[in-house]
Amino acid sequence: MKTRAAVLWEAGSPVEIVDVELAPPGPGEVLVEVAAAGVCGTDLHVVDGELPEPFPIVLGHEGAGEVMEAGPGVTSLEPGDHVVLSLVPPCGECAYCRDGRPVLCEQAGELAAAGTLADGTTRLSVDGTRLHHFNQVSCFADHVVVPSAGAVRVRDDVDLRTAALVSCAVLTGTGAVWNTAGVERGASVAVWGCGGVGLNVVQAARIAGAEPIVAVDVVPEKLELARRLGATAVVDATAASPHAAVQDLTRGGVDYAFEALGREETIQAAWAATRPGGTTVVVGLVPKGRRIEIDPWQFISEKTLKGCFLGSPRIDVDIPRLLDLYAGGDLRLDELVSHRLPLEQLPQAFERLRAGTAARQLVVFETGQPFS
Amino acid sequence: MKTRAAVLWEAGSPVEIVDVELAPPGPGEVLVEVAAAGVCGTDLHVVDGELPEPFPIVLGHEGAGEVMEAGPGVTSLEPGDHVVLSLVPPCGECAYCRDGRPVLCEQAGELAAAGTLADGTTRLSVDGTRLHHFNQVSCFADHVVVPSAGAVRVRDDVDLRTAALVSCAVLTGTGAVWNTAGVERGASVAVWGCGGVGLNVVQAARIAGAEPIVAVDVVPEKLELARRLGATAVVDATAASPHAAVQDLTRGGVDYAFEALGREETIQAAWAATRPGGTTVVVGLVPKGRRIEIDPWQFISEKTLKGCFLGSPRIDVDIPRLLDLYAGGDLRLDELVSHRLPLEQLPQAFERLRAGTAARQLVVFETGQPFS
Repeated sequence: MKTRAAVLWEAGSPVEIVDVELAPPGPGEVLVEVAAAGVCGTDLHVVDGELPEPFPIVLGHEGAGEVMEAGPGVTSLEPGDHVVLSLVPPCGECAYCRDGRPVLCEQAGELAAAGTLADGTTRLSVDGTRLHHFNQVSCFADHVVVPSAGAVRVRDDVDLRTAALVSCAVLTGTGAVWNTAGVERGASVAVWGCGGVGLNVVQAARIAGAEPIVAVDVVPEKLELARRLGATAVVDATAASPHAAVQDLTRGGVDYAFEALGREETIQAAWAATRPGGTTVVVGLVPKGRRIEIDPWQFISEKTLKGCFLGSPRIDVDIPRLLDLYAGGDLRLDELVSHRLPLEQLPQAFERLRAGTAARQLVVFETGQPFS
Repeated sequence: MKTRAAVLWEAGSPVEIVDVELAPPGPGEVLVEVAAAGVCGTDLHVVDGELPEPFPIVLGHEGAGEVMEAGPGVTSLEPGDHVVLSLVPPCGECAYCRDGRPVLCEQAGELAAAGTLADGTTRLSVDGTRLHHFNQVSCFADHVVVPSAGAVRVRDDVDLRTAALVSCAVLTGTGAVWNTAGVERGASVAVWGCGGVGLNVVQAARIAGAEPIVAVDVVPEKLELARRLGATAVVDATAASPHAAVQDLTRGGVDYAFEALGREETIQAAWAATRPGGTTVVVGLVPKGRRIEIDPWQFISEKTLKGCFLGSPRIDVDIPRLLDLYAGGDLRLDELVSHRLPLEQLPQAFERLRAGTAARQLVVFETGQPFS
């Protein structure tokens, strides 16, 4: 079938919205009509050439939609099902999947690097030129073909244009708190960066019963939003020594510091602000090939510096639970979205993201289905 | 009373063995006749000016001996008790002590920095000049006055000249495996540096049931000793890409990597050799004020970089248990000692340590008591 997709021909060039050929779903795959797709810093890293990917590629990895067709052998999904897409469809077979850490799935990692689906080919092409999949999702498109393991069935009373957010940003921020760090009730939390991920660190910390919760950013509007979502104090990172300000607010050092930007100076600040024996979680993605300097003296006070990928989730458990928390009113999603836009305006969305002037931006698609 | 002690007048100068005045134990303190004291890299860091300490100072922080006199109010110890000295006597009152992490005791940290005992003064002087205590131990001396919380009573059927080792090196290496990392049966382990600490990482990994256990060092004799203590494979670190060799031996990456040297290049190698989701424990002490570069791309695979101080122990539980393991034959201690020397030869011991040509070296004292 024909569908529209945002194609990135090479790093550094603008994405181009073109009609592409989408092959039907193969064994174990499903065709999904996309309802909405979030614009994430990771997509921007690829556009800016800071993450190596095979080109040409269709970006977009945070999305939700409705199943239109199930490929051969798919029994878990059927047309009409509402699904949240995931960039880490677990193979269920590798050592990590069997060890309960499916986010580290070896097959998912290999296919993400190859830019293909499981059979080593792609379902996307234009005029005979093969287009690569981005993490087996590529949801900056009206329709996608994805592995059924990467399409998590969710309750259908939540608008898919909201549900899309839990695919990446919300899953990452909340999972960093609940899964990666395991924040306990009464622990102190600080987060550097109050974008799509950092704001979810804030609200997950609130739901976990953390106190105080300190939000650090340079944009006053983001800090204000962080307050509304649960931050008990905010720190303007343009002031001198934000890490000292965080320490002052947390009795000398914070139990759990989260870095949601992927920048050397904020990782250093979060590490410095962490109390002896505490944990710094690096949630932000530092572009490949960089080196960062850290202060190793902090190791003698038994601090931990811990990486986080997507919030260490089990997607089939965590994604439905997040929507339950949203439906119950504990988790706030609609406030996270600063811009809703059609696919044609994706380049402008990347510009706003680069400038730091937007929170989560959602590409919203015209679909054949009315939503609740 | 008069006693002999090795005094370091300033960084960079040789230690000098002099007769010093030792004041009697104050409230909560005990006078201990030292049986043996280990020569540790941390002492050498102070000699070489890489760790800030107040001068003049009596070094030595790994030791054991026999109680000669208990100060006012001490009910837990009496003359004749065999004790292992500890550089982190817990106050029992601070947030870390109450939280079950006494190795992070705030008072112990403050007094270590000040070079005094709890009342803010020292028991050591020479010709009216005050000498500082090193971590409230200062056991490069015939006798010491220490807080009773830093003198852990141990079984008296273990020779104190052996028991001294568990005060620091053995406690640190085994605790890094059992407490800091929590290595599980069947996990893979690699250790960079097979000195006093690294060899105990090896044998603790063996006791924990880890497999494989890979030892990395540049000295063939140390690697051979590591094999005898439980390493299932060894890697010569002078060869190209020792971290790749470790990965080859551990199915692509090691579950737990321990760095027991405190050097940038070995921390980087251990971090690189750790598998996705695995843990790198920095046990070695990097001198204060340094910066190290790390590869932040490793965070996306959910690796953890974790500091360790003294093996995260509860000294009153872990030190007696180590001697039980020794008495039962599981833990090997005597093989760890490469040199036994009188106090006068301490400068030569530092030279060997600096050159990397010695494993654990023990200063052995003449005491009034026969040992078993």
